[in-house]
Amino acid sequence: MRAEDTIDTGLLSPVRAGTPVETSTGDRAWLQAMLDAEAALARAQARLGAVPASAAAAVTAAADADLLDPRALALAARETANPVVGLVQAFTGVVAASDPAAAQYVHRGSTSQDILDTGMMLVAARTLRIVLADLRTTADALARLAREHRDTPMAGRTLALHAVPTTFGLKAAGWRALVLDCADRLGRILEQGLPVALGGAAGTLAGYLEYARVDGAASAADPGDYLDRLVTAFAEETGLARPVLPWHALRTPVADLGHALAHTAAGLGKMAVDVQVLARTEVAEVAEPAPPGRGASSAMPHKRNPVLATLIRSAALQVPVLAAGLTQCLTTEDERSAGSWHAEWTLLRECLRLAGGAAHTAVELSRGLTVHADRMRANLDLTGGLIVSERIAAVLAPRLGKAPARKLLTRASLAAAQDGVPLGEVLAALPELTGALGAPELEALVDPAHYTGMAGPLVDRALKR
Amino acid sequence: MRAEDTIDTGLLSPVRAGTPVETSTGDRAWLQAMLDAEAALARAQARLGAVPASAAAAVTAAADADLLDPRALALAARETANPVVGLVQAFTGVVAASDPAAAQYVHRGSTSQDILDTGMMLVAARTLRIVLADLRTTADALARLAREHRDTPMAGRTLALHAVPTTFGLKAAGWRALVLDCADRLGRILEQGLPVALGGAAGTLAGYLEYARVDGAASAADPGDYLDRLVTAFAEETGLARPVLPWHALRTPVADLGHALAHTAAGLGKMAVDVQVLARTEVAEVAEPAPPGRGASSAMPHKRNPVLATLIRSAALQVPVLAAGLTQCLTTEDERSAGSWHAEWTLLRECLRLAGGAAHTAVELSRGLTVHADRMRANLDLTGGLIVSERIAAVLAPRLGKAPARKLLTRASLAAAQDGVPLGEVLAALPELTGALGAPELEALVDPAHYTGMAGPLVDRALKR
Amino acid sequence: MRAEDTIDTGLLSPVRAGTPVETSTGDRAWLQAMLDAEAALARAQARLGAVPASAAAAVTAAADADLLDPRALALAARETANPVVGLVQAFTGVVAASDPAAAQYVHRGSTSQDILDTGMMLVAARTLRIVLADLRTTADALARLAREHRDTPMAGRTLALHAVPTTFGLKAAGWRALVLDCADRLGRILEQGLPVALGGAAGTLAGYLEYARVDGAASAADPGDYLDRLVTAFAEETGLARPVLPWHALRTPVADLGHALAHTAAGLGKMAVDVQVLARTEVAEVAEPAPPGRGASSAMPHKRNPVLATLIRSAALQVPVLAAGLTQCLTTEDERSAGSWHAEWTLLRECLRLAGGAAHTAVELSRGLTVHADRMRANLDLTGGLIVSERIAAVLAPRLGKAPARKLLTRASLAAAQDGVPLGEVLAALPELTGALGAPELEALVDPAHYTGMAGPLVDRALKR
Amino acid sequence: MRAEDTIDTGLLSPVRAGTPVETSTGDRAWLQAMLDAEAALARAQARLGAVPASAAAAVTAAADADLLDPRALALAARETANPVVGLVQAFTGVVAASDPAAAQYVHRGSTSQDILDTGMMLVAARTLRIVLADLRTTADALARLAREHRDTPMAGRTLALHAVPTTFGLKAAGWRALVLDCADRLGRILEQGLPVALGGAAGTLAGYLEYARVDGAASAADPGDYLDRLVTAFAEETGLARPVLPWHALRTPVADLGHALAHTAAGLGKMAVDVQVLARTEVAEVAEPAPPGRGASSAMPHKRNPVLATLIRSAALQVPVLAAGLTQCLTTEDERSAGSWHAEWTLLRECLRLAGGAAHTAVELSRGLTVHADRMRANLDLTGGLIVSERIAAVLAPRLGKAPARKLLTRASLAAAQDGVPLGEVLAALPELTGALGAPELEALVDPAHYTGMAGPLVDRALKR
Repeated sequence: MRAEDTIDTGLLSPVRAGTPVETSTGDRAWLQAMLDAEAALARAQARLGAVPASAAAAVTAAADADLLDPRALALAARETANPVVGLVQAFTGVVAASDPAAAQYVHRGSTSQDILDTGMMLVAARTLRIVLADLRTTADALARLAREHRDTPMAGRTLALHAVPTTFGLKAAGWRALVLDCADRLGRILEQGLPVALGGAAGTLAGYLEYARVDGAASAADPGDYLDRLVTAFAEETGLARPVLPWHALRTPVADLGHALAHTAAGLGKMAVDVQVLARTEVAEVAEPAPPGRGASSAMPHKRNPVLATLIRSAALQVPVLAAGLTQCLTTEDERSAGSWHAEWTLLRECLRLAGGAAHTAVELSRGLTVHADRMRANLDLTGGLIVSERIAAVLAPRLGKAPARKLLTRASLAAAQDGVPLGEVLAALPELTGALGAPELEALVDPAHYTGMAGPLVDRALKR
Repeated sequence: MRAEDTIDTGLLSPVRAGTPVETSTGDRAWLQAMLDAEAALARAQARLGAVPASAAAAVTAAADADLLDPRALALAARETANPVVGLVQAFTGVVAASDPAAAQYVHRGSTSQDILDTGMMLVAARTLRIVLADLRTTADALARLAREHRDTPMAGRTLALHAVPTTFGLKAAGWRALVLDCADRLGRILEQGLPVALGGAAGTLAGYLEYARVDGAASAADPGDYLDRLVTAFAEETGLARPVLPWHALRTPVADLGHALAHTAAGLGKMAVDVQVLARTEVAEVAEPAPPGRGASSAMPHKRNPVLATLIRSAALQVPVLAAGLTQCLTTEDERSAGSWHAEWTLLRECLRLAGGAAHTAVELSRGLTVHADRMRANLDLTGGLIVSERIAAVLAPRLGKAPARKLLTRASLAAAQDGVPLGEVLAALPELTGALGAPELEALVDPAHYTGMAGPLVDRALKR
Repeated sequence: MRAEDTIDTGLLSPVRAGTPVETSTGDRAWLQAMLDAEAALARAQARLGAVPASAAAAVTAAADADLLDPRALALAARETANPVVGLVQAFTGVVAASDPAAAQYVHRGSTSQDILDTGMMLVAARTLRIVLADLRTTADALARLAREHRDTPMAGRTLALHAVPTTFGLKAAGWRALVLDCADRLGRILEQGLPVALGGAAGTLAGYLEYARVDGAASAADPGDYLDRLVTAFAEETGLARPVLPWHALRTPVADLGHALAHTAAGLGKMAVDVQVLARTEVAEVAEPAPPGRGASSAMPHKRNPVLATLIRSAALQVPVLAAGLTQCLTTEDERSAGSWHAEWTLLRECLRLAGGAAHTAVELSRGLTVHADRMRANLDLTGGLIVSERIAAVLAPRLGKAPARKLLTRASLAAAQDGVPLGEVLAALPELTGALGAPELEALVDPAHYTGMAGPLVDRALKR
Repeated sequence: MRAEDTIDTGLLSPVRAGTPVETSTGDRAWLQAMLDAEAALARAQARLGAVPASAAAAVTAAADADLLDPRALALAARETANPVVGLVQAFTGVVAASDPAAAQYVHRGSTSQDILDTGMMLVAARTLRIVLADLRTTADALARLAREHRDTPMAGRTLALHAVPTTFGLKAAGWRALVLDCADRLGRILEQGLPVALGGAAGTLAGYLEYARVDGAASAADPGDYLDRLVTAFAEETGLARPVLPWHALRTPVADLGHALAHTAAGLGKMAVDVQVLARTEVAEVAEPAPPGRGASSAMPHKRNPVLATLIRSAALQVPVLAAGLTQCLTTEDERSAGSWHAEWTLLRECLRLAGGAAHTAVELSRGLTVHADRMRANLDLTGGLIVSERIAAVLAPRLGKAPARKLLTRASLAAAQDGVPLGEVLAALPELTGALGAPELEALVDPAHYTGMAGPLVDRALKR
């Protein structure tokens, strides 16, 4: 490539730069996956007698992306709107160079979409395994945090304000629950199996059948039998799943990937925005891991920016809209769309690598997060006990009536807030409460650390998942 | 309501106007679902001894949306950014009117989000059942079409052009496969169960626990026990599922709904755009059902517009982007977001009713579609046999070599196209083919109806699902 | 309407419930706008002699939405995929009831899309004027804030952390700049004029011309002359602009609206998320206006939730994805799309009312925002002077060299942060700085209020816009 | 780069592979643009006396992307969440190698975002000029088509069916109008000027000012003066515009680009989907240009796929959702967001190159489109005159009354359609019409070519734009 063709080295996407998914989704990886599809097809046909075994072996041996020039194929793709036509031509040349007789068996009876879609599923499956491993490592790290901080009290925050106390363990358990949700969704896709694409020119597999008939490998009397055997063999050779129908125009596999990847990126985004809130200078309850050089600012020497959370959030903001584009491609006309198929390729790749980059980044974030329990405790006290006003309302309700209790609390809360006096003191001074609330009980009630509800048991329950 | 407050009567959304999902998702339905949540909560607390049975009964009896003024609640919601605060106040008044002692048990220990989210899940569950029924009816109608037209040949089209023959049965089987994909995704959500929301002010259930302690219904020693029993009772009383954790800020249930509904609308869109292609004046292979008045144009008396497909497609174009908005709301800060929770409500409702309206419309479309097998056959012949050029290439490949065969076919195809002569005649006249291809074989080869590949067995296989 | 048909009273969308745009975009408003279009068309044709003046007067007099039943029209719209066919039928009946002879001039030569699109532009124009007024009021309120706090120092925050000082005036001036950007974009649309739709059945205006010829109002010899006069008259009668071409399938006006409304909602969202950061319990630099009842929590009596910012942000999260749906509808096939036209109606309405609701909410937020300059100052000191480390690096660079200065600052900053000692003290104790930095200079340098750069002049400059 | 790092060679995005925008938006182009920003900043500071002229010259001379390793910078960017910190470090080394004294003036007083955003605007401006040129060439080619086919009659189609006649000239004029709309929107951005970013660490330019004060280039007494001069000089040195305020967190320039590029891609999509409809085998009214090799199918030798339209449509399906992501980034917290800034970079680049690739492809499509006027005429006759039923309704309305005329036409149309008899014959046989419609008049009326309304004058008018 010429220097001016340096299209993407990761410079603008640090969330995935250098992470394993970048390699598993790059053009070279796609090229290799499409060659893997061609080779698997030849071997499958060979197993059925439609291609000589030696030809299948030659095709397999030649299926090496390093022998082709991806940039040349990219440019050729403009002529046909997809890269497979050029790929087949170039690949046939590579095969012919080592085994001229085998060359005619390249792409036999096939169509561009079978190769590109099967290659796409191979890329997706390979990448999903990487992402899943990172999600599981993240979940483990979060389990550790949740266990360790099961009873570390902190302010629960709603609509940006302190609401009632919670624990950091419950927060970490929540992050983990979302990470497991994402892993479940990606894992389900892998378990059910991403399908090979095998349809031929318009989804009837007629070309495959015709070549097999010509070669005596298929009987005209029972096309269904050949179909079953060919799809099975191709699935086995690729390691992918057998679809019920050719899915050139039935794009559930791609839309499912989009959904699960958007869920992953946006779900990891929850942890990221929480970390950012808690890392704020005024809050300072957590800090990101800080190896030398990390989080440095070009202008401000004192800053340790929450860069991992920032990277994750940058992916969380992008993947859902990209995945919407993939879902829309379900609305595909004809036996192959003139455009919506073509729109999927980069959208899906970008979903894979952004979600994968975010998952990889989440590993480091979850493993290295520093938790400042003392700051959590200090912040809990910031409102002078207002954070437990709900509790006092509950205690006073049967003593004063629900509405009067609430009214009294609202009044006392406002007074406490305005005068900067702890709520406990305001309440102690209220004549209405004489007799209704003794000093020792009041003292216990206004301690936020005593009002974390069922946070502990919730953590225990969540960790069983 | 005043006339100028006629906000939505369905006028701008014919895809769902008057369909069952419109009623199941309207403001009144949401109001009722939120009241159902309040009543179920009171009953659940009563089962645990935290609320008197008589109070729970009174709360349940009063939980009737017709006793409240939704417009007044809508206006009040601006003060608190959600409609529950006003709802609780108004509903407490309704309860108090019939049983003053019960009024204090309304919303006891609860929080707005528990009620709104539980109500949202009730609305979703009720609506999903309607949508599923419509999808299943649609799938049945498409199965009939697929069976009936298993062997009806038609042109397979790719990139807008005739490619190779297929059958209408395979096309209908494909539509059905997508419809079943959608039903699977919605059905899985219902089977796994949409969860109740029960978290209290910040997800620790502290308020519920505190009231129960005050009332002697919960022991301070074992909060996990009360938690388990309360969540179980609430789930049973609502008919919803038990979540592992409170999900105020873990929005998987909503994102999952968005994904499945987007899949549904966009998946139905596939059938819609295919019907539109096939209904085109020049193609005329299918026609929509035409009861009197249907499809009339205000300007052109002769037109019978494909209105059902148009309605479905209007939904297919909208739901994916709406659902992207829902997915993004997974990235939610704190124990309750200041905005992303609030953004979900109308997005989810619109997804429900557009997907539901599309499914309802698909029932009529699939049941009433007229198929013109004669036009399919006539169109198949439009290219003078070019549509089977792939087949002839396969047959000639071993006789002439793959590349020469392909080159010859390309040349013959261009000649046939330019001169308007059937491909069979062009080939018959080629000296290169003398001996290689006899007249009877050629005649059989160029009949498109003989080149539908494995379409038939594929239909059989697809119908087993 | 029956109770179960209560589709939307605003219950789920508090950001716009009861705001003026809710009325200006409701079904009744659309119905009235479509009737206004019919009446304007009749008057325009009357001006050209193609319709009797008395008929035009009768049509105009009858054009009252209160005489029609929107729900019935909504249900009828399913038959034709748009509400105009039924509207014309019902409206013709209304006209006939008062003036039977006039009835035949209703919708003369016209087509559904001319009426719906012209009505849509009327609704948009009326709503935009409301939104613009709210944006201008907001900008004025923000100008006041910016002027008043031109020199109120506060922490500038980047990547969630304190960076260097800024002023609240500059922040408010930034919010105002975005609000003016939004107003400019909406205003430009109004200034250039939203266009009438006038194309007839397929954009050639043939129906209008034919009726006019039949009635002797148009000459067969000069169709362009009649075209010009008709479009001009229709534009004048509606108050809308003259388009160059019929735009049934050239949807720039709708996409432009989507863009500008998305900009508006998301731009207002900037102010909203900033207010939320600054209102956080730990930050507490601003507070929302708090009339009685505002921001109350159903569970926590002490909370004053930032509800206005929350409402605005709920709109900011939705409108961009809705507008993406509108932009996609530019890709419209044929002379009228079978679906993408129909997808625009509710998307555009929702964009209008969410952006409009957000603008209305922004008025109250900007006018009533409480600014706590003392907290801003206190927070500035939180880092013990680290917030001005950039400045000290600049001052020391020529004295020690750029790299050594930066290294020294980084070291001192870390020490200050770890030991909780103000940066000034750490620096004062450094032997390297003896001679390089005297005590009085150091004292002045570490005061954050002295390091607000050009914030003041920037505010002045911004307020001139 | 290692082979496995071949991230993007264009293989998956043929719509832009090898087009000029690919080079203008690649990582190398961004790197160069950021270096251009650094150099311009040094020159601007030199003009104000804050940097020695020799240093600015050395910085400028060293600003060559080929001297840096983009992959290494990409990997380093993970540490700081943006590539500028590493870039500054590496670039400082390059400068130091040739002029050690100049090195300390690199990035003086600056911040990452100033460099990245200014670089981004340079990339955008350079790319927009390329896109605009392609749009203008496309518009010219379409003007030729519109003029040439001003009076070529063809079927106007609505909701997929023949409606009334139109002309191909009017259709081409419509495409051109949309292309000009896109050019107007992109051109307006260039005319108003994309702004430099100059804010310093948190938008107050304090760092720039401080260095200038230290160096004696700025007076403490008048910071506004230095501000004005610095911004002006930087704008002049880059060729970009002067913003009113630093826009680190006021993202109008990026959102505007997103809007205009989405408009461009989706607007070009209109032409693409129309070409696809008209190229359908059954319609065959247009054909794409077919240089050798173009549009070849890997399976079907006879096909000439509409690949240019397919490529354009693939972009049209993607850019609107990507641009929605950009619009959402307007909702940016603080003085610099921790994530939404970072999400913009690849979204914007992808919008630029997809829209640019589509525009480049549109040039070839519009210039080479083959128009088959004979097929248009033949298709017009397909409905046996039904396509002019609107006209006959208009003519008969005054003779029979509007409603009876419409009813009669509907009846006759159905009869004609069912029996396959031309409408003219059906009408000629109707006793009701005896006397009302003579044979010669009827014959003229039913000729579709005589019923193109104002199509001709509309073309004339449109071409004046």
